[in-house]
Amino acid sequence: MIQSQSIAVETTLQKKAKPPQDGLGFGIHFTDHMFILDYSVEQEWHNPRIVPYQPIVLDPAAKVFHYGQTIFEGLKAYKTADGRIRLFRPRDNFARMNRSNDRMSVPELDIDTAITALERLIEVDADWVPTEPGTSLYIRPYVFATQATLGVAPSENYQFIIIMSPVGAYYPEGMNPVKIYVESDYVRAMVGGVGEAKTAGNYAAALKSQQIAKEQGYTQVLWLDGAEHKYIEEVGSMNVFFKIGGKVITPALNGSILAGITRNSVLQLLKHWGISVEERRLSIDEIYEAAEQGLLEEAFGTGTAAVISPIGEVNWGGQKLVIGEGRTGELTNKLYDTLTGIQYGTVEDPFGWTREVGAGKTESVR
Amino acid sequence: MIQSQSIAVETTLQKKAKPPQDGLGFGIHFTDHMFILDYSVEQEWHNPRIVPYQPIVLDPAAKVFHYGQTIFEGLKAYKTADGRIRLFRPRDNFARMNRSNDRMSVPELDIDTAITALERLIEVDADWVPTEPGTSLYIRPYVFATQATLGVAPSENYQFIIIMSPVGAYYPEGMNPVKIYVESDYVRAMVGGVGEAKTAGNYAAALKSQQIAKEQGYTQVLWLDGAEHKYIEEVGSMNVFFKIGGKVITPALNGSILAGITRNSVLQLLKHWGISVEERRLSIDEIYEAAEQGLLEEAFGTGTAAVISPIGEVNWGGQKLVIGEGRTGELTNKLYDTLTGIQYGTVEDPFGWTREVGAGKTESVR
Repeated sequence: MIQSQSIAVETTLQKKAKPPQDGLGFGIHFTDHMFILDYSVEQEWHNPRIVPYQPIVLDPAAKVFHYGQTIFEGLKAYKTADGRIRLFRPRDNFARMNRSNDRMSVPELDIDTAITALERLIEVDADWVPTEPGTSLYIRPYVFATQATLGVAPSENYQFIIIMSPVGAYYPEGMNPVKIYVESDYVRAMVGGVGEAKTAGNYAAALKSQQIAKEQGYTQVLWLDGAEHKYIEEVGSMNVFFKIGGKVITPALNGSILAGITRNSVLQLLKHWGISVEERRLSIDEIYEAAEQGLLEEAFGTGTAAVISPIGEVNWGGQKLVIGEGRTGELTNKLYDTLTGIQYGTVEDPFGWTREVGAGKTESVR
Repeated sequence: MIQSQSIAVETTLQKKAKPPQDGLGFGIHFTDHMFILDYSVEQEWHNPRIVPYQPIVLDPAAKVFHYGQTIFEGLKAYKTADGRIRLFRPRDNFARMNRSNDRMSVPELDIDTAITALERLIEVDADWVPTEPGTSLYIRPYVFATQATLGVAPSENYQFIIIMSPVGAYYPEGMNPVKIYVESDYVRAMVGGVGEAKTAGNYAAALKSQQIAKEQGYTQVLWLDGAEHKYIEEVGSMNVFFKIGGKVITPALNGSILAGITRNSVLQLLKHWGISVEERRLSIDEIYEAAEQGLLEEAFGTGTAAVISPIGEVNWGGQKLVIGEGRTGELTNKLYDTLTGIQYGTVEDPFGWTREVGAGKTESVR
């Protein structure tokens, strides 16, 4: 593990002007600094450093351009009303990054090193954590292959980088249910593939379908399984939940869908509240049948960016299904309020999910 | 279309020392120059230029690092005995790149522009085309997303780059059959996915399985289909052919396998020779049954790097199958000799596959 004091810090001589907090958007503005860690077969992970936000310089043969060995994570830091900065389940993000690394033949990262680096970076750029309601600091850790040879083989060199972006409220005008297009032809991932790894190729594979959905007036794509085009996988880059006859059902982690941290938080919250939840195979037929029987009550996506995203309409091959009269459901609202409340520190956190930056240097709060 | 004279050429002030031709390897050494073309939504493809081989400088938020929008091609230039430089089916490579681009939501490239750029680059670096038997100049065109925002959407900016690498003889000690491991758990791609696009994510997805095969003493992985783990797809990053009872069979292009240019050349050659060929679904069971009946005669992979790669042994879940007593088959040898003969100009090219660099500036030889 790399200690905080062994991270070299070079602060910028020219701080950027901060963008106005009412027009931050998502992933457009970046803070003044970034964290970099190098990997070579001989030295393993080495040279941890915080430097001014600056371009990455790579040989044109660097493997990331050709064979796509790259993995990312996404998490957020929140400012509480009394000015403290809190992270939400950061260990889970870096643990998942290591599972992705394993699938993509990328060397493991020490989780404590990653968290130490992240906290140090946040301290350096603490004035970048926005304060307006609903805003947060989006954190993007990622790793990519840098070896400059064209043989198809795992890279011998990597960089692990953390960049950070102040982001706006996801629902500046209140939470509105989205319309979802069920994709019956294109497939995002399949069992045996890399669908559960947070790797670039999964996102590139989804773009065309997303464009088609958008042209037809839909916000997101609902993916079905690759083998039978029958079972529900994810929605856009979120996990998906359906409330049917009082029970909440979400697709089980089968290897082809992402093990979302918000997904896991929702499952824990629901169990905590005594609501019946099922993680299992869920066919698109079952959704339509439940709707016919008047049992389909709510639907929502979960992810770091939106936290909870209510679904008001589904279109499967032209059959439109309006859910909850197109309005956000009661449970969907309660989950959103509770999760964001825990994140911003206005609601008690019985799960130990939040971690205050700077406060946990010696302990390992999960 | 961009004309040759509109390509800005900045030649290097310091030419690199050329590596010895008996130890070139593959994709390790690069020539003195590279070609770059930029894309923006406003200007489309613009600013064609040849510059000294140099690092690529990218914002840390560039989409290629995060969402993997990147596509590549691979082709070769060969020096004939009388000193001419020839390309093998370059239009087919750039046509395929455009099909990959379409699948990955990358803007189309003008094929004539790409060929003009490539020929101009080869002229500038003509002294890099190696001359020893079996050596060639490997050409790597690629395109990647450069927009520096983290929203999951097609990039608004790209770079198209060509780099070139002198490569050694693939079989310096003669062609030897390889041993192949049939992958029954991990999957490379599936119908509805991006398997037929030459995109980075497909290669990243294959690495783990390749490592497992290598640890067990196998050179390549034979991939089965994602839905049933039953039908043959590709071998490593090559297409695959089996000769059974006098007929040659290769998996049909179903959307999940690459439409190899060497694959297509082999099909055309076989038809030209009057040999019966079938492109269809081919199960791994059928291979084992044919072997039991004494009908499995030869097997080989096809690709730009090796051209033809004989397969001497297959291992499917522990059942080992030796093909052709582990020796290179007669037809396999004939295909290799003919294809490489056409490429190096020692065998007549009845298909119009070869294109002399500099000779075809106004015509469009396929």
